[in-house]
Amino acid sequence: MDKIFCPESIAVIGVSERPDNLAAGIVGNLQRFGYAGPIYAVGRQPGMRDDIPILPSVEALPEAVDLAVILTPAATVPDLMDACGRKGIRRAVIESGGFSEFSEAGRALEKQVRTVARRWGIRFVGPNCISVINTETGLCLPFTYLDPAALRRGPVSVLAQSGGVSITYALLLSEAGLGVNKVVSMGNKADLDEVDYLTYLLDDPGTEIICLYLESMEAGRRLLELASASPKPVIVQKVNRTSASTQIALSHTAALANDDRIVDAALRQAGVARAVSFDDGVRLAQGFTLPPVRGRDLLVISRSGGHAVVAADAADAAGFRLMPIPQDFADHVRQSFRADVIAPTNPLDLGTVFDFTVYAQITEEALHRLDPAALLLIHTYSAGSEGEISRRMARRIGELIQALNKPIALCAFSQQDEIERLKAHTTAPVFTEIEAAVRALAASRERYARSSVLVPLPPPPKERPHEVEGVLKYSGVLTTDLSLGLCAAYGVPTDEWAVVEDMDGAALVAAALGYPVVLKLLAPAVIHKSDLGGVMLNIADRKALQQAFVALTEQLALEMQDGYRGVLVQRMFSGGREVILGGKRDPSFGPVVMFGLGGIYVETFDDVAFRLAPLSRAEAEEMIAEVRGSRLLYGIRGQPPADMEALVTALLAVSDLMVACPEVVEVDINPLLVFAEGAVAVDARVVVRQ
Amino acid sequence: MDKIFCPESIAVIGVSERPDNLAAGIVGNLQRFGYAGPIYAVGRQPGMRDDIPILPSVEALPEAVDLAVILTPAATVPDLMDACGRKGIRRAVIESGGFSEFSEAGRALEKQVRTVARRWGIRFVGPNCISVINTETGLCLPFTYLDPAALRRGPVSVLAQSGGVSITYALLLSEAGLGVNKVVSMGNKADLDEVDYLTYLLDDPGTEIICLYLESMEAGRRLLELASASPKPVIVQKVNRTSASTQIALSHTAALANDDRIVDAALRQAGVARAVSFDDGVRLAQGFTLPPVRGRDLLVISRSGGHAVVAADAADAAGFRLMPIPQDFADHVRQSFRADVIAPTNPLDLGTVFDFTVYAQITEEALHRLDPAALLLIHTYSAGSEGEISRRMARRIGELIQALNKPIALCAFSQQDEIERLKAHTTAPVFTEIEAAVRALAASRERYARSSVLVPLPPPPKERPHEVEGVLKYSGVLTTDLSLGLCAAYGVPTDEWAVVEDMDGAALVAAALGYPVVLKLLAPAVIHKSDLGGVMLNIADRKALQQAFVALTEQLALEMQDGYRGVLVQRMFSGGREVILGGKRDPSFGPVVMFGLGGIYVETFDDVAFRLAPLSRAEAEEMIAEVRGSRLLYGIRGQPPADMEALVTALLAVSDLMVACPEVVEVDINPLLVFAEGAVAVDARVVVRQ
Repeated sequence: MDKIFCPESIAVIGVSERPDNLAAGIVGNLQRFGYAGPIYAVGRQPGMRDDIPILPSVEALPEAVDLAVILTPAATVPDLMDACGRKGIRRAVIESGGFSEFSEAGRALEKQVRTVARRWGIRFVGPNCISVINTETGLCLPFTYLDPAALRRGPVSVLAQSGGVSITYALLLSEAGLGVNKVVSMGNKADLDEVDYLTYLLDDPGTEIICLYLESMEAGRRLLELASASPKPVIVQKVNRTSASTQIALSHTAALANDDRIVDAALRQAGVARAVSFDDGVRLAQGFTLPPVRGRDLLVISRSGGHAVVAADAADAAGFRLMPIPQDFADHVRQSFRADVIAPTNPLDLGTVFDFTVYAQITEEALHRLDPAALLLIHTYSAGSEGEISRRMARRIGELIQALNKPIALCAFSQQDEIERLKAHTTAPVFTEIEAAVRALAASRERYARSSVLVPLPPPPKERPHEVEGVLKYSGVLTTDLSLGLCAAYGVPTDEWAVVEDMDGAALVAAALGYPVVLKLLAPAVIHKSDLGGVMLNIADRKALQQAFVALTEQLALEMQDGYRGVLVQRMFSGGREVILGGKRDPSFGPVVMFGLGGIYVETFDDVAFRLAPLSRAEAEEMIAEVRGSRLLYGIRGQPPADMEALVTALLAVSDLMVACPEVVEVDINPLLVFAEGAVAVDARVVVRQ
Repeated sequence: MDKIFCPESIAVIGVSERPDNLAAGIVGNLQRFGYAGPIYAVGRQPGMRDDIPILPSVEALPEAVDLAVILTPAATVPDLMDACGRKGIRRAVIESGGFSEFSEAGRALEKQVRTVARRWGIRFVGPNCISVINTETGLCLPFTYLDPAALRRGPVSVLAQSGGVSITYALLLSEAGLGVNKVVSMGNKADLDEVDYLTYLLDDPGTEIICLYLESMEAGRRLLELASASPKPVIVQKVNRTSASTQIALSHTAALANDDRIVDAALRQAGVARAVSFDDGVRLAQGFTLPPVRGRDLLVISRSGGHAVVAADAADAAGFRLMPIPQDFADHVRQSFRADVIAPTNPLDLGTVFDFTVYAQITEEALHRLDPAALLLIHTYSAGSEGEISRRMARRIGELIQALNKPIALCAFSQQDEIERLKAHTTAPVFTEIEAAVRALAASRERYARSSVLVPLPPPPKERPHEVEGVLKYSGVLTTDLSLGLCAAYGVPTDEWAVVEDMDGAALVAAALGYPVVLKLLAPAVIHKSDLGGVMLNIADRKALQQAFVALTEQLALEMQDGYRGVLVQRMFSGGREVILGGKRDPSFGPVVMFGLGGIYVETFDDVAFRLAPLSRAEAEEMIAEVRGSRLLYGIRGQPPADMEALVTALLAVSDLMVACPEVVEVDINPLLVFAEGAVAVDARVVVRQ
């Protein structure tokens, strides 16, 4: 990968003398950004471009360059790759479009390119990509004009599925004063993909923060495991959230949409911050350049009372606590700095203090004496005589962040050119929106407060209990007895039940369990056709049992013969709180566990929580707390609290099942009844795919 | 008010030669902004400031100026106002702090200022304010340095409760390329308040859009009635949303917090867009400079596929529909403009079109042929050779907006200095964030789609029914019979009931109504002490009635004698869907109507809707639709739908009651049972304040 980001020689293929030649833009960018190695140009027509001779073929190159950059019509690419291979070139960036994103013919062409590359051992970026940039070496491969003055070198590396977005991020990060280190737009990912790039960037000394823009997350699990295990903050902007945008993405980079709620849960579980826009990605990156925020106590210092009220709103919305300020601190400030601080409130209003050197002093004093988890300093000033002293203050804040290792978010309001000057004078990130600053601090807090690391999915056990193997030889939607049996095998609490063939059996079992009982017909057809019924609830006595049994099995006689397994007899439960547990095998993230309250809550309020399996106990507890309706479980309105321990156990059991049984694609326990003591899975439905 | 914003002469009071003199900043701003009338300076020490002689007193002024601007210690202000009065000056801006926002003594001083002003007929801004700006006349009264280059003249006027925020808005609106017309920071509003300023600005020819920043809304109702009746778009940033910020506001401008949900509902009802941050206020203003968005069909044209996916996400989240594009349009575009459009999709991807003049042509063609409600044009380009042609394109988009009277949101991505150039070259608002552009379009759509105008509160009727007057002579929390009676008088559906004194009466009534029945003790003490019970439900027969009656009245004998009204006998209902209706008299907004589903939903999911009374039928229907849990009323899971007509009638009845009875401060109908046919208020609680 180093040869891609730090090549010692480059050949740009596709250059001509024509003014609208795109590949020449690559040569121009390399020259402007001061790339130091030799740059060769290859094109069909000999000539000169930007003082570089255009060589007629790859063969004509004087050396096997470290990196070939190809921007020619798609149809020519396989042969060019072959020529590169023969020449001994082993790394390429294919910027040409017209491959799988464009047509079926393009898809075939892309396959051909991959085959040629494999033959020669060539690793490549793209096709259909724009950016590979390394500001450390002057590597700048986009074919569109880029201005070195607009692209600042910094600690953030960008990995984007879209070329246009990669450049937008690079420019916005530079404008914010942060700058970029490495940028790559992945294009169609015919060879190298996000896992390859992320692995490299997590290990790259120049990269401190990584910002990913993704339209799909096929390798979601692996990607998040990498991010979760790394000390480097990772920001992900996952777009393509809705059905509307899914359609465009399909025609754009052939992306698969993920269930956005699962994406959300997975990112949080991995300690990855999710950006909701480009600007949001930039502000999150700004926040991660600060020392970690560890705790909820925020101190706000402001010169404008109005901005202070806005900050208080933002702090509250982001889950911060405006820590109380003791009177003696206010007294101390007043005496030591002769600062006419109105009252010991948080936000601390410095509206009457016009000497800004005092701001940095009060900030330092507050960090020492009050030790907040984070400090937000809002500085409103005019560009006139207040400019110079404000820049000095901002520089000092940058030094304080380093010296005290404390997160200080500086949020400045002045005229635009003055803010630009301020940014240039401090190492502190400068925010220009209060909500953005608070959001960045909160994202840092969430990252460093997470209770666990997303662990790699363990391999399924070699041996599984006999009864599990028995159930998993079936395929499709399992009948209730098999589903409950599988759940029980992994520790989901269930009650006793029995499967009977005839009325006599049913009567014996019912008498043993005690009335009232439930009968369920065990036949695949019942599962698929809910209008057939197949369930008889609340059977009070033997007489009712007889009627119910006849009614059920009459249905059977008419409709269902295949896969018939008999009739299930269960106790009828009443009371208890209804919850739903689920498991799903996601194509991107693997096994996922779901928790929600009874049907109405899930459907109407979308009040469910997801986590990737395996679940830790802490994560299971978090899931329950995350569902708002869980309040009902804690015993409101005089009801006793539900047995939360039993519920946690059940969730962990579903997690175990999903990990141990890769054949299971879906589990639906609906409902699990949770009592004051214990819980019982009343109904379950497992889907197996061999 | 004209004399405040367009004075022909100004005296600045509080000027001295000292370098840190604040009032001199006002003189400096007036000079820099080219204020054309005479500027006088008044101060205690004679001298010169900025070529203006400092006069020793108000008396020494050569004329009764149109406007006095005072920035002196608070204690000196009453006498100075008196001197102004004697001099014949009738308008003032008091920028000095140290009044009611500061201390009790300051509050007394403020009262004194008001008394003096009333005596002389002086109308004034402040005290404790910073900004009165009118870019049309060069009036610029802040004492902090402002740069004319950073303050652009434009169509937006700003009305802010905070001085710092007023300047932030003025700068941000200018940066966005919009500019400001008039700016005022209201300070403590000892005389002129938001209603005065808004009335003026709504009538001011220079003002096309008004942006309000408010920390409280004491005059909320009046303010919103004005805004609602005006054709000028009004944007409100109401901060101080949470308890945390309420505390600061109290110590800042003595603001009262409003229930934020009521604020939200009221703003929406009035067709006012609510800004959630300064930047959001600016983008909403940008959107309102465009022709109205009328409908949900959005067309997105983008050069970058990634940006297109982001736009699709944003459009979906904002309730837009990406209208389908017919194949023949794509064909037409391809033929007419030789544009290699990949597919007839929306977003329309112009990634392969490098001639930007075609962008404006396609935009025009799309508006003609497809007639979307709004068009979002996302333009990603580089600052090099693409700059000039992009600016031409942007200029053309500005012309198209005017010529076709259609909203086109231009969202541009390039390096910062290039974007600044682009803004300077077009009359179209230039957005720099996709979500911001879509948000602005959606706010316009919401404003122009609203079903009604917030009507002024009608006066209560002179005559009310006899039974209403009878009930309203009571005070405090009314007993259930009185509460239900009052609700019934305004049309809330109720069942029959009777109040009895003894067991025989109860038995007669129960027999007439039919068992099962409910008994409720009618005594104020029961209302206040819920642990006393006072309610017996589901009484099945006469024997149970006897026991219940004794149990209830025994409680009474022990505890409650005062205000005892007997025992209420009602039918016991079962079935029906439980909803809650409420009314509240809000200190800022007057009568408010509330709707929600049964207790658990209201408490756990905060799933309630508010509207200011009087309610229109359409608004009542909207309220119901707004509550997510209302799905349950439409008959899910095989239940019949609830009688929505009866529910609407009940809501309108609560609205009527709240309007007709100003003594009623609270109504709580909990529950109203809604059946498949009809509805019944089972319990009600009315609070009366005389």
